[in-house]
Amino acid sequence: MEKYLEKTKVLIEALPYIKKFYGKTIVIKYGGHAMVSDQLKEAVINDLVLMKFVGINPVVVHGGGPEISRMLNKLNIKSNFINGLRVTDEATLEVVEMVLVGKVNKEIVGLIEKAGGKAVGLSGKDAGLIKAHKKLAKNPEPTGEEYLDLGYVGEISEVNPEILLTLIDKGYIPVVAPVGSNGSGEFYNINADEVAAEVAVALKADKLIVLTDTPGILLNEKDENSLLSKATIAEVKELINRGVIRGGMIPKAESAISAIKRGVGSVHIIDGRIAHSLLLEIFTDAGVGTMLTP
Amino acid sequence: MEKYLEKTKVLIEALPYIKKFYGKTIVIKYGGHAMVSDQLKEAVINDLVLMKFVGINPVVVHGGGPEISRMLNKLNIKSNFINGLRVTDEATLEVVEMVLVGKVNKEIVGLIEKAGGKAVGLSGKDAGLIKAHKKLAKNPEPTGEEYLDLGYVGEISEVNPEILLTLIDKGYIPVVAPVGSNGSGEFYNINADEVAAEVAVALKADKLIVLTDTPGILLNEKDENSLLSKATIAEVKELINRGVIRGGMIPKAESAISAIKRGVGSVHIIDGRIAHSLLLEIFTDAGVGTMLTP
Amino acid sequence: MEKYLEKTKVLIEALPYIKKFYGKTIVIKYGGHAMVSDQLKEAVINDLVLMKFVGINPVVVHGGGPEISRMLNKLNIKSNFINGLRVTDEATLEVVEMVLVGKVNKEIVGLIEKAGGKAVGLSGKDAGLIKAHKKLAKNPEPTGEEYLDLGYVGEISEVNPEILLTLIDKGYIPVVAPVGSNGSGEFYNINADEVAAEVAVALKADKLIVLTDTPGILLNEKDENSLLSKATIAEVKELINRGVIRGGMIPKAESAISAIKRGVGSVHIIDGRIAHSLLLEIFTDAGVGTMLTP
Amino acid sequence: MEKYLEKTKVLIEALPYIKKFYGKTIVIKYGGHAMVSDQLKEAVINDLVLMKFVGINPVVVHGGGPEISRMLNKLNIKSNFINGLRVTDEATLEVVEMVLVGKVNKEIVGLIEKAGGKAVGLSGKDAGLIKAHKKLAKNPEPTGEEYLDLGYVGEISEVNPEILLTLIDKGYIPVVAPVGSNGSGEFYNINADEVAAEVAVALKADKLIVLTDTPGILLNEKDENSLLSKATIAEVKELINRGVIRGGMIPKAESAISAIKRGVGSVHIIDGRIAHSLLLEIFTDAGVGTMLTP
Amino acid sequence: MEKYLEKTKVLIEALPYIKKFYGKTIVIKYGGHAMVSDQLKEAVINDLVLMKFVGINPVVVHGGGPEISRMLNKLNIKSNFINGLRVTDEATLEVVEMVLVGKVNKEIVGLIEKAGGKAVGLSGKDAGLIKAHKKLAKNPEPTGEEYLDLGYVGEISEVNPEILLTLIDKGYIPVVAPVGSNGSGEFYNINADEVAAEVAVALKADKLIVLTDTPGILLNEKDENSLLSKATIAEVKELINRGVIRGGMIPKAESAISAIKRGVGSVHIIDGRIAHSLLLEIFTDAGVGTMLTP
Amino acid sequence: MEKYLEKTKVLIEALPYIKKFYGKTIVIKYGGHAMVSDQLKEAVINDLVLMKFVGINPVVVHGGGPEISRMLNKLNIKSNFINGLRVTDEATLEVVEMVLVGKVNKEIVGLIEKAGGKAVGLSGKDAGLIKAHKKLAKNPEPTGEEYLDLGYVGEISEVNPEILLTLIDKGYIPVVAPVGSNGSGEFYNINADEVAAEVAVALKADKLIVLTDTPGILLNEKDENSLLSKATIAEVKELINRGVIRGGMIPKAESAISAIKRGVGSVHIIDGRIAHSLLLEIFTDAGVGTMLTP
Repeated sequence: MEKYLEKTKVLIEALPYIKKFYGKTIVIKYGGHAMVSDQLKEAVINDLVLMKFVGINPVVVHGGGPEISRMLNKLNIKSNFINGLRVTDEATLEVVEMVLVGKVNKEIVGLIEKAGGKAVGLSGKDAGLIKAHKKLAKNPEPTGEEYLDLGYVGEISEVNPEILLTLIDKGYIPVVAPVGSNGSGEFYNINADEVAAEVAVALKADKLIVLTDTPGILLNEKDENSLLSKATIAEVKELINRGVIRGGMIPKAESAISAIKRGVGSVHIIDGRIAHSLLLEIFTDAGVGTMLTP
Repeated sequence: MEKYLEKTKVLIEALPYIKKFYGKTIVIKYGGHAMVSDQLKEAVINDLVLMKFVGINPVVVHGGGPEISRMLNKLNIKSNFINGLRVTDEATLEVVEMVLVGKVNKEIVGLIEKAGGKAVGLSGKDAGLIKAHKKLAKNPEPTGEEYLDLGYVGEISEVNPEILLTLIDKGYIPVVAPVGSNGSGEFYNINADEVAAEVAVALKADKLIVLTDTPGILLNEKDENSLLSKATIAEVKELINRGVIRGGMIPKAESAISAIKRGVGSVHIIDGRIAHSLLLEIFTDAGVGTMLTP
Repeated sequence: MEKYLEKTKVLIEALPYIKKFYGKTIVIKYGGHAMVSDQLKEAVINDLVLMKFVGINPVVVHGGGPEISRMLNKLNIKSNFINGLRVTDEATLEVVEMVLVGKVNKEIVGLIEKAGGKAVGLSGKDAGLIKAHKKLAKNPEPTGEEYLDLGYVGEISEVNPEILLTLIDKGYIPVVAPVGSNGSGEFYNINADEVAAEVAVALKADKLIVLTDTPGILLNEKDENSLLSKATIAEVKELINRGVIRGGMIPKAESAISAIKRGVGSVHIIDGRIAHSLLLEIFTDAGVGTMLTP
Repeated sequence: MEKYLEKTKVLIEALPYIKKFYGKTIVIKYGGHAMVSDQLKEAVINDLVLMKFVGINPVVVHGGGPEISRMLNKLNIKSNFINGLRVTDEATLEVVEMVLVGKVNKEIVGLIEKAGGKAVGLSGKDAGLIKAHKKLAKNPEPTGEEYLDLGYVGEISEVNPEILLTLIDKGYIPVVAPVGSNGSGEFYNINADEVAAEVAVALKADKLIVLTDTPGILLNEKDENSLLSKATIAEVKELINRGVIRGGMIPKAESAISAIKRGVGSVHIIDGRIAHSLLLEIFTDAGVGTMLTP
Repeated sequence: MEKYLEKTKVLIEALPYIKKFYGKTIVIKYGGHAMVSDQLKEAVINDLVLMKFVGINPVVVHGGGPEISRMLNKLNIKSNFINGLRVTDEATLEVVEMVLVGKVNKEIVGLIEKAGGKAVGLSGKDAGLIKAHKKLAKNPEPTGEEYLDLGYVGEISEVNPEILLTLIDKGYIPVVAPVGSNGSGEFYNINADEVAAEVAVALKADKLIVLTDTPGILLNEKDENSLLSKATIAEVKELINRGVIRGGMIPKAESAISAIKRGVGSVHIIDGRIAHSLLLEIFTDAGVGTMLTP
Repeated sequence: MEKYLEKTKVLIEALPYIKKFYGKTIVIKYGGHAMVSDQLKEAVINDLVLMKFVGINPVVVHGGGPEISRMLNKLNIKSNFINGLRVTDEATLEVVEMVLVGKVNKEIVGLIEKAGGKAVGLSGKDAGLIKAHKKLAKNPEPTGEEYLDLGYVGEISEVNPEILLTLIDKGYIPVVAPVGSNGSGEFYNINADEVAAEVAVALKADKLIVLTDTPGILLNEKDENSLLSKATIAEVKELINRGVIRGGMIPKAESAISAIKRGVGSVHIIDGRIAHSLLLEIFTDAGVGTMLTP
């Protein structure tokens, strides 16, 4: 009985948090290690379903994990690299879409169903959700060409949130694969961080939570204890300018800044390697990453 | 951090229960010791608000606690008793209504607001909720009169659940005081157990939970360990007939049988003296009383 | 037959007025003599029900009448007065709430039901209707203290009209008792004139009608024939400044000015001692008080 | 002031009647003298508008009055009669439709607008309201032909109440001219009593009120004081069989019987020559005709 | 089979046009030769019904065709002319309304029904659709009087589109006769071009299409090949000023300019003498008239 | 111009068909040659989009075409066959799902978008659309085992049409891949004909149209001119019993019978090798296959 009483205490302690986020929309960028480990996967999915049942509206945007590379390998499709960037030719694009939409997305949908939730998986092609165009990547090298031709790598023109709003309203968790279409038959592979940020903006989300394989933004890349737990976007810009934030964290930070500027309440870059980091972030005071605010 | 992880585990364990009761209507008869102790009161209120936030529709029917007697004493209103039953004359009725509706009901409403929920208190007069008529109480004594005149003690003619459905739909917790009206200006004091049962029937509730000052139905009144944890209404009738269930538990058991017969999913007579007994009943496997089923 | 034909004539004459107020919201401050005389009470209630049936949306805010004093006397609760103002201590507040909410409010609700209407009684605690805080009353005397401590006398912070709009939409007449809550467990006794004015503002009411025990605003307090039948708020301010309006009429006039400034169409201070003064005001050209307009 | 108080008394006396008919649908067959006298016309129209404002849903079906004959005369169109029945040839039909729809109907619509109501005039062609076919009139004479060819005189196949329900819901008074269409381009002149009865059935009306030029059903045709004020349909059938009801009253009585059998609550054959007979019927106890009930 | 395949090709070719106008509102001024020829009539009606089924919302405003003159002749009503303008006295007005509303309007409604659509015919009196007042026509002659008294010729004060929006929403094609009312019992004959333009403005229509007996606006009145196929309103004004557009085309052009200025997307003056000119205009690239744009 | 007039004629001829199917739900099984040829693909997609715009609700269920085999080959996944049936092991299932959901489905969705429509692609996992269990295939050979283990080949337990109804209502064309889930994490490859039939039943579809690579049901398999153009389900059963219908047509015919028995209006087995066979079937009298009716 003692054990049960302890449980009711925990539930009651969650009440202020449940109340705080009731009816709010939270976009979750799901990727990295949390998509590889079966245990972490189960934890993330349960967190999503719990969020939905207590009145929060989660929307998932996922990356491809290592599944795409695995399938490219199996099919002996070699990737060309220009200046260190992978070029997406037609054969690669076909595999990328198949794996993202036909495998990764449906696995998430199936796990949510198994955990008791209701989900609908979408690619950016569905319902005109993500309109995109070819990304013009500036050539960082002085090779004469101003832009690199990365093939079918896309940039978002517009997110039409209509289908997401319909699905949320009907009680579904939308799960979005980062593929966009130009509306005339061409489609593109798009960076999932960018998709998550644009979806959050289009939905006027209260929060964007990015699951990463780091503790959050570190003030010293080498030191996991140097976590920046809270910062304004002005402070983050300063840290980028000063070279404190660097490497792969720069695009994530810039996506966050852009999202907040266009109306998203806050962005959370959290440690996806900790089980239930989503619940920790939302329902407790435990610090599991960096919170960026206006 | 350990502590926080433990909490997320508890929340996730609650998921199957949350899912099970999502969108269900549960009527709670609130009375007894749980209305006296400040600590228990807070626990009950928090349980109700949590239930509402996780998608359950609780409806509260309360009794008067010792407040009515306290006020009658202060006002020097003496109660007449006929054959051991308290007669409700006009002066008494005035006090009963004032205390139930103006004090006890509003205290519950205020506590729910304080705990972060939204409640609306109702008497049976509001919106024609409870239509009632004078109760004809059989005289158990051979004194010549067939019926006892108990004054303004009422019996329910009809519950019109319209206002309850409106309030539930708009996100409020309805809190009902056990007063009924005959629609022509007369009103009555009604037993709260009866009101709770009739409200549950009118709402086609999934559950009726009765908070009592006992562990539930006991097979041996003297032994708190003789709890009957589960029974069908046929079995309960048999126990009444055999004299195992007796005294004050008989009307509660009969109300339960009547409610289940007319469509309420199950009735739970639970121990209101245990903090969070409502959550224990709904969100755990802990046995905190007797469950009656068809 | 002659008699009947006369009646149809009267009904048809009412048509332009019915048309004029169809779908309009009218807040009625109900108090004074009209709450004491049984005959006037019946007349007011019938007027309210008729208004509802012919398509007007009446909302009632009532005072406490002499019932509060009567109950305080019975309970031997003495009122302390500071500089002539009654202090509301905890014991007094308990009685005030009980009588307003549990007796006066429910009596009105019951009478409306008896007259064929549907009403729901509310205290300001219900559904977060009236948020209030302690009133800081300026000390008019040079006793050293700047403010008087009047105990649980409140001032309105905000009126949330959501529950009123829901009830109006479903065909109910809302009846409001002038009690407010600070949302954290404390509540306050509030002047009913203030509540009526703030409710009218929150509902963007077309009219606020205040039932008083005077013919309206008099230009000469001693002469009942000196009625001011119509004035703009500028004119009323001038009359206050010139000392023509004085005493108990000043707060009523100031409430009216404030309500009109914030969007209420007009305020009518009428003579509640005349039977059916509400109908006279709305459905005829008879002058039964003072109309204040922007 | 006395006069005004008298008026409020009359309004309050109307309350029980208003309550009784609130939200009810009443079909009015408007014809006869009440369509000729300007004074009666104004009274009928005002009655309709008042009914609408106090929550009743009136639907008007009108006849043609003497306007059709007047126009046929002007146009020198002679009517052929077979066995005493007027034959509607194409030229006649054109005039009938023009006068009914383009003149009589629009006059009623315009008068309702002038009296402060909102009306929409319809012919049975509009929105597929009245589907009809050629009427086969039994030949009462032994001339060899079993049926008389009356030309474009129609019989109702079906009433589709969709447009009426839409208009009622939006606050309009529908005004229907007795013209029906076969859906393939042919249309028919139909008896207005039949149209009113079928419309009442299709709307499941609570009442059908027929304005006539008699006091109602008389037990002795010659004696206006022999009014049958109330009868069941069984009693009416008996009166027809016994020859008490005869002549032009027979089809009206039979329409009434048929309407009541198919769900109309009651049928009232009243004296349209009395001003405000509609209000007298609905809002008073005055007897202004015959009420037929199941 | 070849034939059938050809048909599917045509249907598919219509797809971009159907898509373009899906959900759009198009007001059609129906008059002239297209109302006289049975073949053209059938074509127009079929075009309207097809438009409705493929998701366009057509609203028809019709003129009187030669029917009014025909009926005035039959009734020997002589028209007075002042300075060449026909005066509408009371007798004329009665005939105008009867013919427009009772004959022409209902014929269109009946034909739409026969073609498989659902229509509701309205006069401007219905539902307060067209409020109008007496037109003050400037006297072009120096006869001393500044204005000509044309009798019951009206000018539009206001179009209330409420009933049109209701009917469109419920799937009906509204058909409007050009009669307006002053709301106090007087009504007026109004130019149908003006009614069509004002209705288009009130509905914020995407297109106003005017069926005429010319190929459109001609740059040389005598030469049917001098069609102006497209022009801005600035260009049209210039053409009026330069005297290129003249005679009966001036009011049409001015109505068009006024409609476009107040929000109508484009106005098309097309050749109603060509069968299916409506479909040609909407579903093909064929030029069948003049398109005026902002 | 002649050409354009011809087009309007064709459009008008389509009107009765458009009217007939307005608001109807039609399930299309899309497979075979029509999914291989680029020209046929475009024709089918245009047909679907046109259907949607003229008020029909098409729902697409597609097969996998030769894409699955192509991908299995590329990945060197050999298929095991038991008694001539392909066994779906885990590796095969992964490829089947990826190709169906991530490639074929999204290609259709993209083509619909390109043609101007709005589509949402679904697998049976999404929104719990298709619940399935392992198919028990009777062993036709006397090898001792009663059932063949075909691996992850599924049979439908239940279709939940909720998400389809939501999407239809919002104007989308749902496109369904034939994958089902058991709700506990396992999923299955299901025959697309079966999925189409069950989806049609769950939607109470008016029509199920099956695109095949035959002219329809042939009375003589060898003779394409022996087309059975129309039959009742009783006649079809008889033809199966008599061995006239055989081979691959038997399951299609049995699916059709089962669908019709459970409420689908009619089933059409048509020749997908003819361009626009869908439009031919729906909008013309051309016979392009076999129609089965109750």
